Amino acid sequence: MGLGRLGQTLTAREIFELVKKDLERVEREISLESVASVDAVTTISRYLQDGGGKRLRPILVLLASQLVGGVSDGTIRMAAVVEMIHAATLVHDDVIDIAKTRRGRPSSNAIWGNHTCVLAGDWLYMQAFQVALRERNFHVLDVLIALTQMMVEGELLQLERIGKIEISEADYMELVDRKTASLFSACARLGAVMGTIPGAASEALETRLGEFAWNLGIAFQLVDDMLDFTSHEKVLGKPVGSDLREGKVTLPLIYALEEATPEERLLVGTVLTDGNYDRAPFAEILRLIQQRHGFDRVRERAQSFTERARAIISEFPDSPNQRAMSALTELVTERDH
Amino acid sequence: MGLGRLGQTLTAREIFELVKKDLERVEREISLESVASVDAVTTISRYLQDGGGKRLRPILVLLASQLVGGVSDGTIRMAAVVEMIHAATLVHDDVIDIAKTRRGRPSSNAIWGNHTCVLAGDWLYMQAFQVALRERNFHVLDVLIALTQMMVEGELLQLERIGKIEISEADYMELVDRKTASLFSACARLGAVMGTIPGAASEALETRLGEFAWNLGIAFQLVDDMLDFTSHEKVLGKPVGSDLREGKVTLPLIYALEEATPEERLLVGTVLTDGNYDRAPFAEILRLIQQRHGFDRVRERAQSFTERARAIISEFPDSPNQRAMSALTELVTERDH
Repeated sequence: MGLGRLGQTLTAREIFELVKKDLERVEREISLESVASVDAVTTISRYLQDGGGKRLRPILVLLASQLVGGVSDGTIRMAAVVEMIHAATLVHDDVIDIAKTRRGRPSSNAIWGNHTCVLAGDWLYMQAFQVALRERNFHVLDVLIALTQMMVEGELLQLERIGKIEISEADYMELVDRKTASLFSACARLGAVMGTIPGAASEALETRLGEFAWNLGIAFQLVDDMLDFTSHEKVLGKPVGSDLREGKVTLPLIYALEEATPEERLLVGTVLTDGNYDRAPFAEILRLIQQRHGFDRVRERAQSFTERARAIISEFPDSPNQRAMSALTELVTERDH
Repeated sequence: MGLGRLGQTLTAREIFELVKKDLERVEREISLESVASVDAVTTISRYLQDGGGKRLRPILVLLASQLVGGVSDGTIRMAAVVEMIHAATLVHDDVIDIAKTRRGRPSSNAIWGNHTCVLAGDWLYMQAFQVALRERNFHVLDVLIALTQMMVEGELLQLERIGKIEISEADYMELVDRKTASLFSACARLGAVMGTIPGAASEALETRLGEFAWNLGIAFQLVDDMLDFTSHEKVLGKPVGSDLREGKVTLPLIYALEEATPEERLLVGTVLTDGNYDRAPFAEILRLIQQRHGFDRVRERAQSFTERARAIISEFPDSPNQRAMSALTELVTERDH
């Protein structure tokens, strides 16, 4: 993440300091719970955990818990659970996308093969549910299982749309909702439920924090899909333009195509047909999106979601934690990777 | 299934008549719960459901419930849940085995592709858990999630052993336990828990019925692995000798290899290396197993498990239901597909 703005907002470092100790507990919990009776799974889990990632989802769980009273043991477990579910979806996604790299390293399927990774993903899902089940809280399980199913359906929808140029903004938003925003929302809700003061998180409070995180999640994914075009391989940890190469038409391109000439549409169609940039160079696609204001419009759109998130969090009384959640929204939209 | 023996034991038809009406309710429940918001999943689920199969697992749930008092609405749902979990494992297994046919039809991955099937399997798991979650019974969820994880670990172990000739009987039994017997056991236990009279199924009763089904499951898989060699493609719904072709050394071969000459070991090794019977004809492998008493010994072994299952069920008071469960053990060992 880049640094936050000057003024009242917190920097990335300051946010991180707020959750640092708890995040270490989460990491230990993930390590502890990722030991399978089959070595391959333990190895893959560890590989995924060591691969870094921003831990945004566990951080959301922690911040939400803190906001409603404090981090409990259940908060730590739930933060581990959401990260494990996230890891499970990544393993299966990489199998499906035939990804070669993730976060600057070979993807797990590139090392262990698709077959092992299908099962390792299954295992991670089940292990996450096992840990969640220990809370003996049906509401938590309702949230997690509905969420996972929603994400799987999102992946399936995406698969059906691979290679298609006729993707509407609504189609795209549905995927972003299912693939990213729902998980963000669940993180904040679970964090609220797990706060130390039992019953402190009313249903209304849980819902409101969920809405905050949902808006944050949409903004996060919009920026992510923009960075897939505008960032650099070293920063992204995978080649630029991967989405389009894999047949995924995302919002910058959807906006650009609305104003594109038939020739420009043809250019985009060529990448979708070929699955590479040999005949339709990436630089030309990039220029096309820029000229047709694709990036400007996506940036505006993301901004409107972060503003909504910020408006929700401003309803809460001022505290370092409340300010951290507000600052998070800016960090998400202004990040460069 | 073949017909049962003469005498007190029930025939397959008679067992089926006992559960027929309830089984129809289970089928309706599965249809109802397999409708996804993504068409591909609904289609795949329906394809799997229509593909037949013996419905042994739901039948076990129903019989166990009946034995402890009667079939409840929860029994029907749980019978649907175990069949959906079974279907989910089959979809992922077929992806992993790169299977082309199952039950005499193209396998789901052959029609819809591996990618969709990975996600369809995920969806079926989640949907099964959703339905189970509605029971608001933590014990049920404990059983189901531990079971699913156990099965996934079994598949992973199997994957690690693919193509290896040095498989011990203990290695093999571990896989059979994880892949088949655990699910059978869970079916009987869940059936016991779901019986109409609340609390009728004590922990001891649940455990005992679980042990019955566990032994039945082992016998079932032993016979299954024998039939993979001795049956016919039309009856099996897939080519004979598939296991060995896929690199899986099962018990008939493990026993035969114990007494095999170096030349015979080489013959088996050739199939494992080649992944086909071009250089080491299937007929020769078959003769080898026969000559080395592989089938005789597996048949005896299966028999000892069915006897244990029958001994357990004989502890229960005589009733049509109790006799059906006893007869089931014979049908399983004497079936020809």
